Amino acid sequence: MGTVNIKQLAKQLGLSISTVSRALNDSYDISPETRKKVLNLAKDLNYQPNPHASSLRRHQSKTIAVVVPEIANNFFALAINGIQSVAREKGYHVLIYVTNENDKIEEESLNHLQSGRVDGLLISVSNKTIIDDKLYKIKEQGIPLVFFDRVRDDFETAKVTTDDFDSGFKATEHLIHQGCKKIAYLQISKKLSIGMNRMKGYLEALKKYSLPEDKKLIIDCVDDREKNYGKIQALLQLKSPPDGIFASVEHLAITSYMVCRDLNLNIPKDVKIISFSNLETASLLNPSLTTITQPAFEIGKQAATLLLKALTKKGFVLANTKLVLPSDLIMRDSTAKP
Amino acid sequence: MGTVNIKQLAKQLGLSISTVSRALNDSYDISPETRKKVLNLAKDLNYQPNPHASSLRRHQSKTIAVVVPEIANNFFALAINGIQSVAREKGYHVLIYVTNENDKIEEESLNHLQSGRVDGLLISVSNKTIIDDKLYKIKEQGIPLVFFDRVRDDFETAKVTTDDFDSGFKATEHLIHQGCKKIAYLQISKKLSIGMNRMKGYLEALKKYSLPEDKKLIIDCVDDREKNYGKIQALLQLKSPPDGIFASVEHLAITSYMVCRDLNLNIPKDVKIISFSNLETASLLNPSLTTITQPAFEIGKQAATLLLKALTKKGFVLANTKLVLPSDLIMRDSTAKP
Repeated sequence: MGTVNIKQLAKQLGLSISTVSRALNDSYDISPETRKKVLNLAKDLNYQPNPHASSLRRHQSKTIAVVVPEIANNFFALAINGIQSVAREKGYHVLIYVTNENDKIEEESLNHLQSGRVDGLLISVSNKTIIDDKLYKIKEQGIPLVFFDRVRDDFETAKVTTDDFDSGFKATEHLIHQGCKKIAYLQISKKLSIGMNRMKGYLEALKKYSLPEDKKLIIDCVDDREKNYGKIQALLQLKSPPDGIFASVEHLAITSYMVCRDLNLNIPKDVKIISFSNLETASLLNPSLTTITQPAFEIGKQAATLLLKALTKKGFVLANTKLVLPSDLIMRDSTAKP
Repeated sequence: MGTVNIKQLAKQLGLSISTVSRALNDSYDISPETRKKVLNLAKDLNYQPNPHASSLRRHQSKTIAVVVPEIANNFFALAINGIQSVAREKGYHVLIYVTNENDKIEEESLNHLQSGRVDGLLISVSNKTIIDDKLYKIKEQGIPLVFFDRVRDDFETAKVTTDDFDSGFKATEHLIHQGCKKIAYLQISKKLSIGMNRMKGYLEALKKYSLPEDKKLIIDCVDDREKNYGKIQALLQLKSPPDGIFASVEHLAITSYMVCRDLNLNIPKDVKIISFSNLETASLLNPSLTTITQPAFEIGKQAATLLLKALTKKGFVLANTKLVLPSDLIMRDSTAKP
């Protein structure tokens, strides 16, 4: 007996192929009644899904989308270069959407890239992201997606990141080795696993070296540079200010430099600074900035390679796995001993 | 007598509407025979084009494309933010294409954004651009386009730039006022009018202050940072090296800083440096960098405003005009007197 396919199910039910497909994939936008009707008939006719159909159906546009939270940031610029290098080799176009850390723009972008516009998606989520439902819909529509750098841990798909916990530990340990006893952590959104993992590394290092965890030294920063300036200024004007700062992202290090300059604090004498950063000018700053430097180009390249494999290799399914590339600690003058 | 429209012409000729439209618009991809057939029938039936039709026809996607040569560059990051701020207000999506100064990628991007994908185009050309034909085709297809920053002077459409000649003059005059007698100019591609206009300002200032024009001090830089490093190193190791450097773009100033550091040259004592730049860390460099700072956000905003007016206002046609926004000279330590 020949196998029944989606087209035949749709015809028999008087529904569109797309509706049947979404019902079979438990899509949220299908009513429970319709879903039940579809599933019942599928069972009656012994429908067997073609495991490759959904991942091979949409590859028409030869286009992938990259959704990033910001572009005035060397990490994302380099990651996009890595993505383009792979995409171009395989004849794919790259469309870039910038969300400016705005969850509304992020959602609009995800809406926009659907309906055949792109075959696959690479995304680094904004720090306010509330788009999990939207992402599941995209996945159900047969658009494979890969997270890079800023991932959603609980979302099942491939992720390419750096070793945030280990790097957070190494950065903090480095400050301790350089003589710091009171180390502040400048945190971005708690919604981002990268920030949380970096902080866990920081806390673990404090513990290992028997330094107390001090809530006043953990600063929740925001998207507003002026507000962050005020927060860091207040931190450095505490009665008992920190002698080390670990900035979890680049722009927090830049703002820390500005505050130190304006408060006439000497880096590294009064306070040492280390930061996650791919800043091209890190070695030219006054003083040069010690960085945890992510393999940004390589992260983009690996993420794009996985996505294109899912798009072009029959039978390749993106597993729920994490590819973790190590970052480098590059010591410069901002953490030098006197 | 009722007027005949494109649809009727197409039906009578047995051609597609798109072919007839392109024939009427003298598109390059229509054979001379077909064009002649279409034009003859149009004449016979007294066809009168609707002047707004071509500019209003395609506004379906509510999407505009932005084509930029690079993104690891604060100018373009800020300009894109300006573009997005306007687009979002009007309910338009923004797709970004990065060409990496590669004329092939640029051409592929322009091919890709056609066929209904976008309603309009904002472009800052690559330094190897050879895409004029392609851009004329896009214009003929009724996709309005606006140049920003890096324009093609001879292409008829709206352009938003900064005052490159005046800024080039001011930058050079500033170095002269600070005591420089031998000023080098670091030039990007000669194909770009911005580089040429900045250089004209430089030459004009030399002339005004009776300084000789010295070919050895005008360096043709390229896309390759290592090669530029070698060129700038050779420049600073001349028997009679320059005492001032005017970098026409940001990355040439960064490379100059690296060369000076490696040659143990003191900025500003041995050589003063000024650069076109929107670098966020300009004030934190060692020494802080004197910049000609373009109104990048505003350039993006104005360019997007013009484009969206062309897309949404009936009867508004993009004139062949240039909107010129002034840049600021921000003096810092890299050009200070001893």
